[in-house]
This record gives sequence, structure tokens and C-alpha cells, in this order.
Amino acid sequence: MKEKQTIVIVGGGFAGLTLLRRLNKNLYDVVLVDKNNFHGFPPLFYQIASCGLDAGSISFPFRRELRKGRARGANYRLGEVKKVDTVKQTVETQYETIHYDKLIIAAGTTNNFFGNPDLVERVFTLKSASEALRIRDEVLQRLELAALEHDEEARKKLLSFTVIGGGATGVEMAGALGEMRRYILPREYSSIPQKDVCITLVEGTGALLGAMSEKAHEKSMQYLEELGVNVVLKHFLKNYEGMDATLDDGSVILSGMLIWTAGITAQKICFNGFTPQLAKGNRMEVDECNRVVGSENIYAVGDIAYMATKTYPNGHPQLAQVAIQQSHNLAKNLNKQFVAPKPFVYKDKGTMATIGRNRAVADIKNIKLSGRVAWLAWMFVHLMSILGMRNKLSVLINWIWAYCTYSTSLREIIRPNRYPLRHTALSFKLK
Amino acid sequence: MKEKQTIVIVGGGFAGLTLLRRLNKNLYDVVLVDKNNFHGFPPLFYQIASCGLDAGSISFPFRRELRKGRARGANYRLGEVKKVDTVKQTVETQYETIHYDKLIIAAGTTNNFFGNPDLVERVFTLKSASEALRIRDEVLQRLELAALEHDEEARKKLLSFTVIGGGATGVEMAGALGEMRRYILPREYSSIPQKDVCITLVEGTGALLGAMSEKAHEKSMQYLEELGVNVVLKHFLKNYEGMDATLDDGSVILSGMLIWTAGITAQKICFNGFTPQLAKGNRMEVDECNRVVGSENIYAVGDIAYMATKTYPNGHPQLAQVAIQQSHNLAKNLNKQFVAPKPFVYKDKGTMATIGRNRAVADIKNIKLSGRVAWLAWMFVHLMSILGMRNKLSVLINWIWAYCTYSTSLREIIRPNRYPLRHTALSFKLK
Repeated sequence: MKEKQTIVIVGGGFAGLTLLRRLNKNLYDVVLVDKNNFHGFPPLFYQIASCGLDAGSISFPFRRELRKGRARGANYRLGEVKKVDTVKQTVETQYETIHYDKLIIAAGTTNNFFGNPDLVERVFTLKSASEALRIRDEVLQRLELAALEHDEEARKKLLSFTVIGGGATGVEMAGALGEMRRYILPREYSSIPQKDVCITLVEGTGALLGAMSEKAHEKSMQYLEELGVNVVLKHFLKNYEGMDATLDDGSVILSGMLIWTAGITAQKICFNGFTPQLAKGNRMEVDECNRVVGSENIYAVGDIAYMATKTYPNGHPQLAQVAIQQSHNLAKNLNKQFVAPKPFVYKDKGTMATIGRNRAVADIKNIKLSGRVAWLAWMFVHLMSILGMRNKLSVLINWIWAYCTYSTSLREIIRPNRYPLRHTALSFKLK
Repeated sequence: MKEKQTIVIVGGGFAGLTLLRRLNKNLYDVVLVDKNNFHGFPPLFYQIASCGLDAGSISFPFRRELRKGRARGANYRLGEVKKVDTVKQTVETQYETIHYDKLIIAAGTTNNFFGNPDLVERVFTLKSASEALRIRDEVLQRLELAALEHDEEARKKLLSFTVIGGGATGVEMAGALGEMRRYILPREYSSIPQKDVCITLVEGTGALLGAMSEKAHEKSMQYLEELGVNVVLKHFLKNYEGMDATLDDGSVILSGMLIWTAGITAQKICFNGFTPQLAKGNRMEVDECNRVVGSENIYAVGDIAYMATKTYPNGHPQLAQVAIQQSHNLAKNLNKQFVAPKPFVYKDKGTMATIGRNRAVADIKNIKLSGRVAWLAWMFVHLMSILGMRNKLSVLINWIWAYCTYSTSLREIIRPNRYPLRHTALSFKLK
């Protein structure tokens, strides 16, 4: 009897998790490698940052998932894949070397600062739960200090928030800050005049939520203005040294805190014995069945994959739905070992973004929704997508609470502890 | 008309929060100063550490509390009080100087390492939510690494947990680790043999839960042994350099991770113009009305106060109930400005500790409970004491979930993010 082949999945996001469930564990030994021990939920990271949700409510440990129905039989190993050796057929993490017969890369994307070292060191980002927690702590710390500060100029510096990037994350983050100013500030920081808080959203193109419909562009603009967010279109950030954000036309925006959502780039993986073709944003070119171009047994799915088709000549959008659908298709193809693989066809289920309570936009095929209807649809869709019943319940309670009280609940500054000085297990070398 | 007097409360724990609510805001300007912007719940910190609860579920922002009924009208200011000037009647934080007419010190206690610098740098502690989160991350990281480690010796080093101190916190922490080994390990870390995990609890006196009844001593011992915890009595830690914990008799316990719950000391506050009398554990001596001995307008309540009475010749126990009752009494006395103050009388409502599911002990006056009854009583009492309905609900759901699934939900390693390098608001100087 032939031994089972080993499939290694790099990354447990939407794509990796779908594969984990769908791949036939009777045919394959399935191994998931991820640097985090949990599945996160990026669409709601901005709610962690704006005190609406706990990180634990939208995260789910892989090992817990592996006990359940479809995922049972697969394995999880902690580690960050830095190198792939296509000759020996191995992936290397900081801890170990793992053999694969087939490799699926679903490592997603990270922040792109376009090589600007000032940005790396000075801006806040939103690509992980811990980055979101940093934003939460910083915003709250600024509010507390502003409540103590008597000098108006200094207070305005503390309370100048600039979000760069008018995609869904940027719009949602700016909206959440706008709601904080509107609902939290007057009731809890009565010593801070509302006018001292300045929230600016900068977008390089001519519209917010560029991938969505005309109506969504207009509505999101209107909602943000209602919440007092200054929107600057058709300009991009040129320089930032910690207080003044200089745009391409030389204009300056006071930005004590700058949140960067304007660029993502595929996670970098070094290959030995093979050179993948990289497209825009360092995405790996794949064929219509998600096989990496030029390779036999390496696949890429989700945000990191670049699949150009007739309908999507510039590659598919980097959305959860694409990642999930590609993974479904790839799992089906791999499970039917002796049948010709089916090419991937993306079914656009629509896109949505929320700006604040009763303020959202949704494009679902030809239906363009906005306002409360879109907001309820947005909540329903996201609630259903969160992994785990306990998490769903926890998120639901937080949302109901926030809706009834016009307030978010998780406004605690919990900074990492200083001691012990050594991260003991982190410095441990495996034998 | 005479201006209102200002009462400054240092610390928003059980004592500070009670005062905040009970002091008459028509008589006094009440100002709470705390280095954290939220009220924590120390009795459940060990559940944060053992993945049972999110820090957000048992924390409550002061500003949210100040909007509600009794606390309304008081003020909160972020800051750590380092110095009190009794001549100028001011307290100094890192940010500002605040005038007081009456000062109430409710700053509580912190870890006591008895001057051992090795301990400061190497042990894990449980005196705050962020310390508890560090324990959670470390325990999980060790489990993940052990799952990758093939060498048995190395695995045993990773998985050797020693808890020092057999009070409630130590017993509860050791019990939670024991449950993790029993319920989580076999189902989620099948590559780790259960025998490789070693949990030891070291207590210097002859009994666990020293302050409780004989029955509680025996039962807690029995429960811990059922959960596979090695209990070492009548010995104390002499030396720890990161792996071997050496006890006073020279015996050595392998301790890859050491959790220290064996000592607390009152928070240190520098006085200018006045020298408070310090008792054991640096507690400030107070009279029977919680006035600091030798002072006119300075009070101390809760863990930081040392009140020796006939019934408690060595001071009152450092418990939440004492802090709350002292604060009630002090608030009553201060609210009746022209009546002689009433001395404090402690009503012991009982003490409890939980070791695991269906395993708890409770001494309520003459009734000594154990097992499931005590466990349910423990849960009820703690649930009722948590601040905020949303928090109560959130904790309840987590507990029900854990009970039904024999599993904890929050097993995510969420480490602090590295960037941005500057903590921008923290380095901000107020004008």
C-alpha cells in the first residue's frame, strides 16, 4: 500500500482554514504551519482597534478547530515559514524542517510601506490583532493625556488622527474614530472640546471604496462627513516624521497619530531551486487551478496568489471570498486525484463596508444598499463568518450592547508587562 | 458660600471604586487617580492566565463607571502617584500635580520579591491583567514548542511549571494548570505524553489556604493531587536562576517556568513633610477610622492599610471584602462631616477558593463547603461582583462554554506588536 502524501499548508487564514477542512484526510496527511496559533478575522480588526471587540472574540485557536468535524485528522505546527527547498521538498520554519509532497502557500499579505523607513517606525497599522491592540492603547492613551492637558495646541496635536488609504479598512477605521468623538467624548471626556479632535482620511484615487459602486463612493463620503471626518481625495502621503504628514502637493496635515492602511504586499518566502514569477504586489503567478506557474506541486491561494483571467485581467481582488472559493476549488481538485482539475471561476457575492451605526454600504450583485439595511446585512454576514459559537455569541453581545448604549465597552489600556525580562520559551532552541 | 473640599483617591481597586460611589459629590469634589484607566478584578486574574477569560471581560473603564448613578460627578485622572507633599497638600503623578484637602490612599499592593533580583527578572507574576496575559502567552508557547520537540528531556524542561505560594492565587493557578493538562493536552496536543508535564506547588507553611479552615486545607490538597499537582509543604524557595528552583533544604525542582505568588508588599508612596508609620509588608498604620496615624487629613484603606484591633491584632486580612467594608465606613464618616466618626468593624462574610471544575472550598461563617456546592457558590459570588452587565454576561458565557466543552476558549498567543518603535503618546510631555 502506498503511503499517504503530505500536503503542507502555509498560513491559516481564510484560505488555509478552508483547505484544512476540505482536503480529504484519508488521502493526505495535512499539515498546517502558521506563525500564530490561531485563526484571525481581519475584517473586524478595526473593531479591536476602536474598542468594540476583544481580540479573543474574533480569534480561534487552530488546535480547537482541529478537534471538530471536517478538520479532524489534520495537524498544526507553530512556525513562520521563511524558506522553501523545492529540491528536497521541504519548508523551513525557525524551529524545524518539514517535508512536503504538495505545498500550498496561503500566507497572505503584510503591510507595504513602499520602502519608506520613516513609515515602518512611525505609523500604526491594522494587519493583525496585535497591531490593532496597539492602535487601541494609543488612541486611549491620547484621550487620557488630552484630558490632562491645558494647552489647546498641545491637545490638538495629541488628538490629530490621520488615516491613510480609503479602502474598506481605512474607511471603517476613520468612521470608528468619528463615532468615538461623537458618542464617547462628550460623555466621558467632558474637559476635551470636540473641535480639538481632528480626524482626516487621505485617499490617492478619486473615490473612497474604489472597488465598489458609484453609490457606495458617494454614501461612504457622506457618512464620513456626517461623522466629522475630513476626507482628502486624489492626494497621497509623501513624508511623515512623527507629527506633520506632508502630501504630494506640499500641503501638511497635523497627524499626531498616523494609521497606515494604504498598501499591502504579499508575504515574502525564499525559494531554493525554483523561482516563482511575481506579479504586482509580489503576488505569485498561478494558473487557473491555483498551481504556481512553472511548478509541479506548489500551489498558491488567496491574497498571495495572482491569477489573471479574462474577467480579471489584473488578477482577482484580495478578498476573503476569493480566498475561500479558490480553496474550495483547489481542495476539490486535489481530492479527485485522477480527474483533470477544474479551473477556478470566481462568483462575486458582493462587497460591503460599514462606517458607523446605521451607516454602511453594500453592493450585492446589482443591488446597491446603504444605511441601516446595509448595516444590518453587514453585521449578519460578518457574524455568520466568525469561527466558533462562543465567539459569535460574544461578538453579538458586544454589538447589541454598543447599539443600546451608544458606547463601546473595551476601553482599557492594557500594556504588555515588562517582567520577566527574558521571554523564556521564545529563546528556547529545539534539540 | 464655602467652596467644596477636594478628596483625592489614589487607586481604583475595590476600595477606591467603593469610595468613588459612596462619597457625597455634593459635599466633595472627588478625584480618582489611577495608573490604569480601568478597574480590574484580581480574584479572576488566574483565569486570564489559564485562558478561561479575556482581560476585557473582567476590566471596566473608570470613565464608563463615572457616567453611572452613584459615581456620577466624580472625576478620573490618569497617572501614577509617586509623591505626596503634605505641606502643600498635593499629590504628584508623572503628568501633573493635584491639590487635595483630604487624601485617601487605596493603592493596594504589588509583588514582593524580598529583594531578590533573580526573581524580579525571571519569574512570572499575577498581580495585574497584563502580568496574567504574559503567563497565558508563555504557557501556550511552551505547549506549542513541546509539540515540536522530539527530545524527552528538553520537552520536560519546557513543561515544568512551578507555582510558589499556597494562598488562593497559587492554589487556583496550580489547579488551572492541572486542568489544562488533564482536559486540553490529550485532545489537542496528542504528541505530548501527559507525564511530561510537571506541575509543582510550593508552600512555606504546613497547609494550603492557610487563612481558611482545616477542612479547606485538606480538600484543596486532595483536589490538587487529583489533578496531578505535586504539593510541597513546609519549604520555601531559596534560589532560582531560570531552570532549577532550589528550596531551603537544598532539594531542586525542575522549573522551566516559575510563577511567583508568595509575597506582596504595599505600593510605595514617597511623603514630603510627613512620615507614615509602616507595619509589616510596608502597610501604613491607621486608626480605627482608617486615618493614617499621625496625620489629620490622610486616610488609607484596603490592602495598603494596617489596622490592628482586638480581633485582628496583626492587622486585617488583605481581602476584597475588607477593602470594600472599610471604604463604606470611611465614606459614611466623611459624608457626616459634623458627627464623630464611627470605628470600623469587619464582618467576615467568608472566604473561598476554586481548584477546578466541581472542585472548590468555601468557609462561610461556620459552614464549611467543598466540591460542587462550593464551586457553584464561588462562581455565583464572583459573577455578582464583576462590574458591568456586559462583563457579567461575557464571563457567564465563557464559564458555561468551558463547563460544557471541558475546554477553555481563549488559547491565542497574542504578543505585543513591535512597530511603531516609539510609543508616541507615552513619550509625550504635557505642557
